[in-house]
Amino acid sequence: MRRDQLTVAVAGATGAVGRTTLAILEERGFPVGRLLPLASERSEGKRIPFKGEEISVRKLTEKAFAGVDLAFFAAGASCSRAFIPAAMAAGAVVIDKSSAFRQDPEVPLVVPEVNPHALRRHKGLIATPNCSTIQLVVALQPLHEAARIKRVVVSTYQSVAGAGQQGIAELRRQAWQVLNGQEVSPEVFPHPIAFNCLPQIDAFLENGYTKEEMKMTWETQKIMEDESISVSATTVRVPVFYGHSESVNLETERKLSAREAQEILARAPGVVVVDEPREHRYPMAIHCAGQDPVFVGRIREDLSAEKALHLWIVADSLRKGAALNAVQIAELLIHPSGLMEE
Amino acid sequence: MRRDQLTVAVAGATGAVGRTTLAILEERGFPVGRLLPLASERSEGKRIPFKGEEISVRKLTEKAFAGVDLAFFAAGASCSRAFIPAAMAAGAVVIDKSSAFRQDPEVPLVVPEVNPHALRRHKGLIATPNCSTIQLVVALQPLHEAARIKRVVVSTYQSVAGAGQQGIAELRRQAWQVLNGQEVSPEVFPHPIAFNCLPQIDAFLENGYTKEEMKMTWETQKIMEDESISVSATTVRVPVFYGHSESVNLETERKLSAREAQEILARAPGVVVVDEPREHRYPMAIHCAGQDPVFVGRIREDLSAEKALHLWIVADSLRKGAALNAVQIAELLIHPSGLMEE
Repeated sequence: MRRDQLTVAVAGATGAVGRTTLAILEERGFPVGRLLPLASERSEGKRIPFKGEEISVRKLTEKAFAGVDLAFFAAGASCSRAFIPAAMAAGAVVIDKSSAFRQDPEVPLVVPEVNPHALRRHKGLIATPNCSTIQLVVALQPLHEAARIKRVVVSTYQSVAGAGQQGIAELRRQAWQVLNGQEVSPEVFPHPIAFNCLPQIDAFLENGYTKEEMKMTWETQKIMEDESISVSATTVRVPVFYGHSESVNLETERKLSAREAQEILARAPGVVVVDEPREHRYPMAIHCAGQDPVFVGRIREDLSAEKALHLWIVADSLRKGAALNAVQIAELLIHPSGLMEE
Repeated sequence: MRRDQLTVAVAGATGAVGRTTLAILEERGFPVGRLLPLASERSEGKRIPFKGEEISVRKLTEKAFAGVDLAFFAAGASCSRAFIPAAMAAGAVVIDKSSAFRQDPEVPLVVPEVNPHALRRHKGLIATPNCSTIQLVVALQPLHEAARIKRVVVSTYQSVAGAGQQGIAELRRQAWQVLNGQEVSPEVFPHPIAFNCLPQIDAFLENGYTKEEMKMTWETQKIMEDESISVSATTVRVPVFYGHSESVNLETERKLSAREAQEILARAPGVVVVDEPREHRYPMAIHCAGQDPVFVGRIREDLSAEKALHLWIVADSLRKGAALNAVQIAELLIHPSGLMEE
């Protein structure tokens, strides 16, 4: 891809991930020559701030991609399916945040800290994983390289930001309603989320797992390129605005001590270890919101198995879990020397 | 113990568990002839409703137990250590909600659905387990009897009610502060709990686990009378007022299908199975608050191990997790025929 000033489209520019993508492109000085914020008809004409200017949102159509070098898609799977072929036909390289193409063997599913080499075989379309998977694999990969992970059991504590701006608004509205003694009306989530834990994210499949849970199984194996890693997940929505937390139990082929795992994670790319429990220091959603790294703490040896560890992993689902990961992929595309470093 | 109208003391009567104990004694028609609500000097003279009357709270002293048949202690471990010897010396049978004597081999630790027989060897003092352990063992015991549980990995989602009325008040106050854009000031919990997940409950021990986590290990083995059951826990405080949720992964010696586990749990004492995910029906904290049973759902076979299951277990920590379990123990003491049924 060209490395000079690029024409960059963001489909879904007015959503939570789209807005965060624009903010991160700006923060990191990504070489955007021309920005094309795209959204549904409803948002057409809205003005979006970018590098000190206000840019009009255009309607997302098949013709919107003429002259576009790079397109981020952050508008859901059906939108990706509808418009990505047109974007690719127009010559854009597409980075897709949705689940539409993640399982396609022709489409690399990339977390730059884990499998940057997979980018080499892209054919114009790269998928970025689900938020809860990204923060998991960033922490698992260095431990897998050191001791081979065989099995992962994970329970998540996922914020409403994972459901976009509507999810954030729903938690805020319902919390007000509860504190004021009013009836709570669920719209975005299937049940009230304020002051509740909801053991369902996305739809249920035949096997009793949700799609969100199965994404953690499938995507982890694809990104880590190892189908022998078994992941079994319970994904839970909690009344937190930003930041997903994960309680992870992993079994390894070689025994890792907690100390060794701490040392490995402390030097792993994209990871910050926060693990001084005596000082009450461990990762928490409220501290990780707005931050780039994947934070890991509560690293300790399992009491119930010889070669197993517990981790507590927290990251901002809008940043590393979505927009940041997509922009990091774009950075690798324009500075492929990064690909050589592994 | 006598079965007619008893003189019943409740130490810690003004706290969240104490108040719930009074409510449950009344609801279940426990034969209270005379009620003695006891609390610290600060609450002396407060009037507490019971069976249509208002009863004055007395100061908890060593001399307060004269003539008491049965004493519930719900005022924390240091209070239990200070006053239980006097209550026992005065001839009262004591049911202690605190952690003070739970590990004492002379003191039965009882969950009526699991080990009612342990009551037979009581010497005037019976301990009731920690809230997060009670709901766990009520669900584990029938599965253990069917297939021998070897290993349990549990991640909890515990409500602020577990920290008493102060915990409830702190979440309410902080939620207001956040919604109003104000600074949040933690007092009860080590960090803000509103719109956050806090991976610490109680103090940390040398091994990197919290006391709350180790209680789940130690107490489960004592109640289920099997030291071969290994429990490894991650306990997390979440911004929920009432109702603890638990994501449980268990490994069994004999393979249990999800269907078989559902059938076993559906006929287990004290358990209600809520497991129709396609209809979005599963246990949730907001539905379980104020309810007596232990609710179990999301029952499914683990994708990462041959003989393992996931469960999602929810119960009201003030009721089955504390006050109800204590009153059920008292009921067994006065109607010991219940002991013969096992």
